[in-house]
Amino acid sequence: MDYAGRLSRLRSAIEGADLDLLLVTHLPNIRYLSGFSGSTAALLVEPHGATLFTDGRYRTQAKQEVKSARIVIGRKSPLVTAAEWLAGRRKGSRGTLARQTSVGIEPESITVGMRDRLAALLKGTARLRSAPPLVERARMVKDADEILRIRRAIELGASLFQVACKTIRPGVSEVEVAAAMEYAARCAGAEGMSFATILAAGPRSAIVHGRASRARIPRRGFVVCDFGVILADYCSDRTRTVHVGQPSREARHLYDAVLEAQLAAIAAVRPGVTASEVDGAARRVLRSRKLARYFTHSTGHGLGLEIHEAPRLAAGQAQKLEPGMVVTIEPGVYVPGKWGVRIEDVVLVTATGCEVLTPADKDLVVIE
Amino acid sequence: MDYAGRLSRLRSAIEGADLDLLLVTHLPNIRYLSGFSGSTAALLVEPHGATLFTDGRYRTQAKQEVKSARIVIGRKSPLVTAAEWLAGRRKGSRGTLARQTSVGIEPESITVGMRDRLAALLKGTARLRSAPPLVERARMVKDADEILRIRRAIELGASLFQVACKTIRPGVSEVEVAAAMEYAARCAGAEGMSFATILAAGPRSAIVHGRASRARIPRRGFVVCDFGVILADYCSDRTRTVHVGQPSREARHLYDAVLEAQLAAIAAVRPGVTASEVDGAARRVLRSRKLARYFTHSTGHGLGLEIHEAPRLAAGQAQKLEPGMVVTIEPGVYVPGKWGVRIEDVVLVTATGCEVLTPADKDLVVIE
Repeated sequence: MDYAGRLSRLRSAIEGADLDLLLVTHLPNIRYLSGFSGSTAALLVEPHGATLFTDGRYRTQAKQEVKSARIVIGRKSPLVTAAEWLAGRRKGSRGTLARQTSVGIEPESITVGMRDRLAALLKGTARLRSAPPLVERARMVKDADEILRIRRAIELGASLFQVACKTIRPGVSEVEVAAAMEYAARCAGAEGMSFATILAAGPRSAIVHGRASRARIPRRGFVVCDFGVILADYCSDRTRTVHVGQPSREARHLYDAVLEAQLAAIAAVRPGVTASEVDGAARRVLRSRKLARYFTHSTGHGLGLEIHEAPRLAAGQAQKLEPGMVVTIEPGVYVPGKWGVRIEDVVLVTATGCEVLTPADKDLVVIE
Repeated sequence: MDYAGRLSRLRSAIEGADLDLLLVTHLPNIRYLSGFSGSTAALLVEPHGATLFTDGRYRTQAKQEVKSARIVIGRKSPLVTAAEWLAGRRKGSRGTLARQTSVGIEPESITVGMRDRLAALLKGTARLRSAPPLVERARMVKDADEILRIRRAIELGASLFQVACKTIRPGVSEVEVAAAMEYAARCAGAEGMSFATILAAGPRSAIVHGRASRARIPRRGFVVCDFGVILADYCSDRTRTVHVGQPSREARHLYDAVLEAQLAAIAAVRPGVTASEVDGAARRVLRSRKLARYFTHSTGHGLGLEIHEAPRLAAGQAQKLEPGMVVTIEPGVYVPGKWGVRIEDVVLVTATGCEVLTPADKDLVVIE
């Protein structure tokens, strides 16, 4: 991973935002900029260098993972260590400062408590300012290394759907199916699942976030499988809805409508199109089928180091798509108490349109 | 779960903190007070009622889970929905307010960005004030329902150690062992693991947070297994260190020293003792063995709805133990590049001392 290049581009962005330095606290941002994968850290990005702060538990790991920043191991929380280090160094190296240093913080990750402690420690030395989402903006467009990792995570995810199809049978519990998928993912080297596996059968398929429960798969009905892995830090995300027993005509129509909406949204993906236009393409199809009111979430989201990243493909989102963005396309229809269908692929925005990274066709799989 | 009782006691605490109401944003706190298990919510606790704010994805789930609060489903983020609802209602019901309502926020969970958006929406209606950790304080002492759930989670966790002992063999990868444990946990009904399973063999046992990797278990050496499940919302946490192949005398001495430290800390647990005294008891034993500098973390932590809760058993922690607190006791010794040993049980503080909830003895298990 090109940590040096990322830090260098971030420095330009920091300067452009009229900040002297940036204190990065969002862990996926720290991983993006330095490779550090521990659970507690702060990264200070300055014009001529970067410093990672963590605690003694991560001494060995930080040394192995981080080459793009110096490492400071503290006894207190990383943010306090960073503040004391900064306050001490500033005084030591320059005496009284001519003007206050402007320190950017990440307002969507730093808590009010952390900010208050920081402000107290840096009083008279630095001025804290909420920075725009500089790292998140950079992370929206993936580089070649990242796309390769996402492809690999998606390949592993694809093999899990085969496991699901072999395990889903009437009478089997949802968690047993999820357990088989998660076991296969772990044995294939996944660090874990990118979110709690959704396995929702029969009427439970109408619950958008129907985590696998002890409910048993009925003899007939839809089963929504929404799952992803984390492989070498990067996430996959995929939804397939299968049908146990022969589907009724109404069930086939519902499935076909969602699939048509999904294909319409994929067809809309290309550079220069706004996120809301892609969302609108899916919604338009479902509106024409009088199903729009059952489509209760947005059409998709970026993914990478996190399962949900920018951009968000939803109404009102003016963000334009750019080559290198990786987003999910996942319309769904949910009729409470009755059933639900969702179909989700991951697509890569290319120079001329998009490439669907999720393999395999999307004809309705019927499990007898 | 006695949600009504918890809310009622919280109301007294809110009044005692000189606040009019409390906006709860930390999700485990929301679950503790209302039973809601979704991933996005805010809970407003007022003198005469409570209101849960979430979005359309959780309409069905919130209705099923939440009986102790009214439910408001919004199209925006729960916090924005709450602020608009509060601002609108205040104006509607009372006209101009005689004085500003004092709204407590949770500074350790609310981000600076969220606080700024809240403040803008409530301008002229309410004054935001950082509240003390009122819900966290209540959660430290577990009630009978919670202790029962923790016991069940620990029982399930115990069965996983049997799985580990059967799977650990030279040449097997760490993740294969973790996968087998996690599969067993899921099939037994766990919602998931309470943290990424730590399985660290040979020299990797010296890495305190050595998540299961693709490294293979060597023919001889320690294997640290640190794992927990979430069962019916509550966490278990347990560490055992086994030895593959016959241990050297030095290895046995190391293990015995850690075990002695762990037993000394357990013996120190009783009501009225401070958290730092328990930590000191473990550290004293390791100091006498000249191993204290290799014990690089604190002795333990509370657990319940979260894997890490108050109190923290560490140097300088003045919190006194009380009956009903549930804490881990987990000293460890880590010699970088060579080996590590950690032994961890969960204990319940009782009226006269403590009860070790983790079953099974702690003699060194040798796997040939």
